[in-house]
Amino acid sequence: MATLNPQVKAVEYAVRGPIVLKAADIERMLQQGVKQPFSEVIKANIGDAHAMGQQPITFLRQVVALCCFPELLDSPVFPDDAKQRAQRILQDCGGQSLGSYSASQGVQCIRQDIADYISRRDQGVPSDWNNIYLTTGASDGIMSILKLLVSGHGSSRTGVMIPIPQYPLYSAAISELEAVQVNYYLDEANCWALDVEELQRAYLEAKQHCQPRVLCIINPGNPTGQVQSRKCIEEVLHFAYEENLFVMADEVYQDNVYSSDCEFHSFKKILYEMGPEYFNNVELASFHSTSKGYTGECGFRGGYMEILNMDSQVNSQLVKLLSVRLCPPVSGQAAMDVIVNPPEEHEPSYSQFNKEKSSVLDSLAHKARLTEQILNSVPGMKCNPVQGAMYAFPQIFIPPRAIQEAQALSVAPDMLYCLKLLEETGICVVPGSGFGQREGTYHFRMTILPDPEKLKVLLEKVREFHLRFLEEYSHPEPQLNICTETEHRETSKQPN
Amino acid sequence: MATLNPQVKAVEYAVRGPIVLKAADIERMLQQGVKQPFSEVIKANIGDAHAMGQQPITFLRQVVALCCFPELLDSPVFPDDAKQRAQRILQDCGGQSLGSYSASQGVQCIRQDIADYISRRDQGVPSDWNNIYLTTGASDGIMSILKLLVSGHGSSRTGVMIPIPQYPLYSAAISELEAVQVNYYLDEANCWALDVEELQRAYLEAKQHCQPRVLCIINPGNPTGQVQSRKCIEEVLHFAYEENLFVMADEVYQDNVYSSDCEFHSFKKILYEMGPEYFNNVELASFHSTSKGYTGECGFRGGYMEILNMDSQVNSQLVKLLSVRLCPPVSGQAAMDVIVNPPEEHEPSYSQFNKEKSSVLDSLAHKARLTEQILNSVPGMKCNPVQGAMYAFPQIFIPPRAIQEAQALSVAPDMLYCLKLLEETGICVVPGSGFGQREGTYHFRMTILPDPEKLKVLLEKVREFHLRFLEEYSHPEPQLNICTETEHRETSKQPN
Repeated sequence: MATLNPQVKAVEYAVRGPIVLKAADIERMLQQGVKQPFSEVIKANIGDAHAMGQQPITFLRQVVALCCFPELLDSPVFPDDAKQRAQRILQDCGGQSLGSYSASQGVQCIRQDIADYISRRDQGVPSDWNNIYLTTGASDGIMSILKLLVSGHGSSRTGVMIPIPQYPLYSAAISELEAVQVNYYLDEANCWALDVEELQRAYLEAKQHCQPRVLCIINPGNPTGQVQSRKCIEEVLHFAYEENLFVMADEVYQDNVYSSDCEFHSFKKILYEMGPEYFNNVELASFHSTSKGYTGECGFRGGYMEILNMDSQVNSQLVKLLSVRLCPPVSGQAAMDVIVNPPEEHEPSYSQFNKEKSSVLDSLAHKARLTEQILNSVPGMKCNPVQGAMYAFPQIFIPPRAIQEAQALSVAPDMLYCLKLLEETGICVVPGSGFGQREGTYHFRMTILPDPEKLKVLLEKVREFHLRFLEEYSHPEPQLNICTETEHRETSKQPN
Repeated sequence: MATLNPQVKAVEYAVRGPIVLKAADIERMLQQGVKQPFSEVIKANIGDAHAMGQQPITFLRQVVALCCFPELLDSPVFPDDAKQRAQRILQDCGGQSLGSYSASQGVQCIRQDIADYISRRDQGVPSDWNNIYLTTGASDGIMSILKLLVSGHGSSRTGVMIPIPQYPLYSAAISELEAVQVNYYLDEANCWALDVEELQRAYLEAKQHCQPRVLCIINPGNPTGQVQSRKCIEEVLHFAYEENLFVMADEVYQDNVYSSDCEFHSFKKILYEMGPEYFNNVELASFHSTSKGYTGECGFRGGYMEILNMDSQVNSQLVKLLSVRLCPPVSGQAAMDVIVNPPEEHEPSYSQFNKEKSSVLDSLAHKARLTEQILNSVPGMKCNPVQGAMYAFPQIFIPPRAIQEAQALSVAPDMLYCLKLLEETGICVVPGSGFGQREGTYHFRMTILPDPEKLKVLLEKVREFHLRFLEEYSHPEPQLNICTETEHRETSKQPN
């Protein structure tokens, strides 16, 4: 341990952190017949749709299976549009095989399909496939761009602005790269909106001790579930233009918008609408993924990024950096292709594809409302509307005595809360401290992915637990030590 | 460019470097009808078997296709053993779907299959699946381990010992991590053997300016194609034990051994045979991949590492680091499973599987001999036997006038040679300077992957070119400037 990379030591990643290790321990005990006050562990800690029972989109899997085993191209079981997609992808693969390395930026026709998709999505805003890079999930793209942009020492070190609460990939990458994390706080009282004045405050403060050069935005929000307004995005882009910031727009939830009064606006489209002075100057990378949306294909590790206005020399450096890892998984690239190039109205798979897609998205919208409603009905809990993405991030009241106990155990108060929730109910959620939150406030993140019946049961259990917790910590006696082996192995701390 | 990460700038990766970008440019010109002195570009720069026409192993693709599209489990087209493999993998996936995230270390039953495979391969040496980690190709595993182990500043910075010539992933990772590259030279006169005295020399010299803590070995060798003897491996492990070095054994070519007088010995097996004092103490990570061997499934980005004797706290840090990237592609994990768990004698796919496997390996063995023979018949060229892996790395004589010209153009002499080879013949190989070589010697790396007929033509063209090159540079007049746009974009330098 003494000679371990200190940047690795500094990394924290709550979504798969100590509480999830503990959940796995409990699951193992259940399998071995050790009795628990519940019959199963429900993992609401991670946006892993298929693990929660969501079925794959048939057309996507057909195309990937055909690419894997092209003998199936002769099979009458597969529809012609799936076969055409597969043949087209294979034609652009070396030796027409999914087993060849692709170019480091990805298979050419898939990059072209992505550019076409972006242009359709953004109502005609041009997209050049040369600016598209396939990635190993969005995380890989985000890491690569951050790696490229971070430099300097001391007060010239690169500052990376991230929202608080944030998805902890960002803080983990910043630790690993020894960059400076610059927090801007989302406005919980205003539905987690991004206030440009808060951006300015964070920027000016950071300028005193680092060089803020990168601005990360997650829209729709993770863990916060807000969908940013057109006006807000315009203000943010104006700010980035003024301060010459590289904008990283994490838009992996672009298909996950549920509130009828919200709409997804891509940062790129708004930038275009702001005119050529903006569109030709602001450096922008937008990230997408096969893992979220209505497909939920996390295991394929598919994703892409579109990069605008990057200096051509820097761009060569990026290509070089990507080439060391050779290429993103080609099956994940094929999955990405289906998402950007779905069946068209005249094609045989159109109707089934749309039925499956709507079914997933309608169900998510229903569960988003259900979650918000039930959580808001619990005394001492307050949840903003889940406008998009896949998570609720309720604020929870933690009684002072519980806070004292947590401090005595050197764990964050909401970690104590989530550990007790797991131990008493089998429900695994992630403490707000793993995402960052305003000091003195406490939250947890839970996914809305379990099927509606299970979700209802889960939410009822959360309610009962919460009431019990409040009750328990209004008592005067000291509590038992609940700190476990797992925690000792890897103690969680608040990122800031 | 001014604020770019300097560690990224320092990275070099010749296998996909400027010469490969130039090859792509020429290929594009050919497609557009621009005349060249050849009709196709032959990419002998990268070990990409399927791109060179090798056919996938049917059983592997069947299993992965079944995992992708489980409706096929009812199809009579697929053999029962493929179905059983697929069902078994799916049962260990969340929601029985390839679309779920796996644990960061990989799908449990696949880790178990890998441990069983290792134990069979090593004639009964125990292997614990808890020590197995699935990776996104071997590169990802190598990067992760290096990232974990590198620390310190100035003379306490971690030194990483690598062979020269090396596979440039190592030098690239070392640059990216700002570690200290410690070169030990393989003995070209002795079939690229690893001499432990040379290791000692390099170690002692390095001790004066860094802390050598990691020893990387590539066996069978890339780019050098040697297969290390049992005796050599034992000496290396003894040395690592004495100096407390973490051994990284890149064994991705373990199935690619062609010389009848050579045998693959895993570092782990030898360590075991050296007795418990060694087996329980030397820290060892061994890497394998789906990309090489007889499957050549590069595009799936599958791989694993087995790690021995890692401190448990360091191990927790590794798991945390891996968890930020969530998981390796699950389809690549499934492909890895087939390699370690192939059809058994009593199973329906056994005979076809073995026929396909032998066909690939026999052909590679034939091509290894062919390449060595023809290259050695060229005046001014000398090639060690290709005992294993997929590459020949001949030493080439470059006339002094060509060296002067290269110096005037600020390119390495073997880069000049390879650029001319590409421009005149369409053959793309990688200059030895991209791998490292003893000063004053020049080489190139070429794969032995093209089919035998094409390979013969290629080798004949290389011979003709080489003779022409020698002839040309024995003339007195100065040559034309052959430096191209591609080179200006990204000038190649010798890594050392």
